[in-house]
Amino acid sequence: MMQYTKEQIAAYFRTLQDSICQQLEQVDGGTFRQDKWERPGGGGGRSRVIIGNHIEKGGVNFSAVHGPMPEKITRALGVNPGDFFASGVSIVLHPHNPNVPIIHMNVRYFEMTNGTWWFGGGIDLTPHYVIPADASYFHQQLKSVCDQHDHAYYSKFKKWADDYFYLKHRDETRGIGGIFFDRLSDTDGFSQADRFAFVRDVGELFAPLYINLLQKHQQQPFTEKEKHWQMLRRGRYVEFNLVWDRGTKFGLDTNGRTESILMSMPPTANWVYMYEAETGSAEALTLSYLKKGIDWCGAD
Amino acid sequence: MMQYTKEQIAAYFRTLQDSICQQLEQVDGGTFRQDKWERPGGGGGRSRVIIGNHIEKGGVNFSAVHGPMPEKITRALGVNPGDFFASGVSIVLHPHNPNVPIIHMNVRYFEMTNGTWWFGGGIDLTPHYVIPADASYFHQQLKSVCDQHDHAYYSKFKKWADDYFYLKHRDETRGIGGIFFDRLSDTDGFSQADRFAFVRDVGELFAPLYINLLQKHQQQPFTEKEKHWQMLRRGRYVEFNLVWDRGTKFGLDTNGRTESILMSMPPTANWVYMYEAETGSAEALTLSYLKKGIDWCGAD
Repeated sequence: MMQYTKEQIAAYFRTLQDSICQQLEQVDGGTFRQDKWERPGGGGGRSRVIIGNHIEKGGVNFSAVHGPMPEKITRALGVNPGDFFASGVSIVLHPHNPNVPIIHMNVRYFEMTNGTWWFGGGIDLTPHYVIPADASYFHQQLKSVCDQHDHAYYSKFKKWADDYFYLKHRDETRGIGGIFFDRLSDTDGFSQADRFAFVRDVGELFAPLYINLLQKHQQQPFTEKEKHWQMLRRGRYVEFNLVWDRGTKFGLDTNGRTESILMSMPPTANWVYMYEAETGSAEALTLSYLKKGIDWCGAD
Repeated sequence: MMQYTKEQIAAYFRTLQDSICQQLEQVDGGTFRQDKWERPGGGGGRSRVIIGNHIEKGGVNFSAVHGPMPEKITRALGVNPGDFFASGVSIVLHPHNPNVPIIHMNVRYFEMTNGTWWFGGGIDLTPHYVIPADASYFHQQLKSVCDQHDHAYYSKFKKWADDYFYLKHRDETRGIGGIFFDRLSDTDGFSQADRFAFVRDVGELFAPLYINLLQKHQQQPFTEKEKHWQMLRRGRYVEFNLVWDRGTKFGLDTNGRTESILMSMPPTANWVYMYEAETGSAEALTLSYLKKGIDWCGAD
């Protein structure tokens, strides 16, 4: 049973974007610029980008698009043709300080005229330097929100994130993972209201979670070497988003708004052929954590 | 009729790599480092990378691999399972000076145990600033080599390059194109020897062609603004290679040697949200040239 209309859900996502931008501006001191755009086939969005004091480049995008389903979408999703509606908030933040992690969050809702609907989304963290205490804090926060809705959520969605945010060609995860979920519908005894409540809690966790990590590390001094390492990690972030991320590929392939899709690109990135981290270095330690299946909540 | 064995063709590609590296070292003053690698399934290669005085980062790779055809390859190529052999030379050079263009060259040979074989390859130029005189020179050199083999080659392969080196999500060509060809076999009255002779001429054109442009512009002064523009153009180069280049995607997806495949990545790259070139600027002029179908040989 559907209790929320697509308009209500989109309206919520719009307020979520507002709330997250406000919270980030307050901490960073910078200001988001907004670009409203319309989709020729129906709907549009509000892209917001900050070039801030602590966030070197960050995007917090809202969109709500609709119209006849492009053939590429019906094929990719394995569904029948018809009209679709899709709305969500999508975020990537690249901080100045290499001690502050890169973060990504997305919450989204999809609905078709035939009544099919689902929620999807996730949050994952990509520290330039993995700090185990922060990684545990991050995962515990996610687990705590998951547990309020279903005790099976965290372990399932954590594994999904490990598998999704993975650079096969590097045999490396993008970062320390987080949670990822898709096609959450009225299955397994959940109602639309249940799924929406979970997605709202994920969306509302984002700002305090990241601001905690930002404030903890944004004043920390760093070296040229650490800055260089940050550029290399950003190169990996580019590789993931352009080679493996289904959302990015899909958007670019179906005439999405390129500048909004690629707001996830870092301001700068480097590539070094055959880079090898020194044995025993902080960089080598970080690489050792970029594996699937690490139980960051297990310590306590 | 096949006059050349796959071993002979691979041996030629090896000497081509040697010759190109020698010519580039002489002009640049820097030295290539070499990494020999073996492919678990059969064969291997010699990757060579230069961090030079004028070439900021460049790769000149040779490989000759063989073995049972991975299922992904048979599917992608639409051929029957069996053993395959593939050999070639692949080059990308990123110069320091934004007045010097980025260049790419590839020549390759593919053969199957059932007797099917073909050559493929191409050269294309990506100037940070398009200089029409250089673009005409570049295309005339390619046309001249093409014309020595077949008068239909240049126009066909030039169009193929326009279509291939194209960023659909930007509606922008990667640069000023060049030539691109694939699956040149014993069709249209050509023998294996004919096709190989053409491919050799393309391979041997590369070094003098690029060295001409390098020596013409490498001492030219440049501004911070021009350097910044170069970083943005490198960002586009990354987007093309990771999103659209079939060779890159295919290599990363079939467990190719990642460091050799991604030697095409620039040393550094930037992304700016909603960058707009000033009306009438050199940057805007360059963007106006990044279109398909420009006849660079028409002027003379």
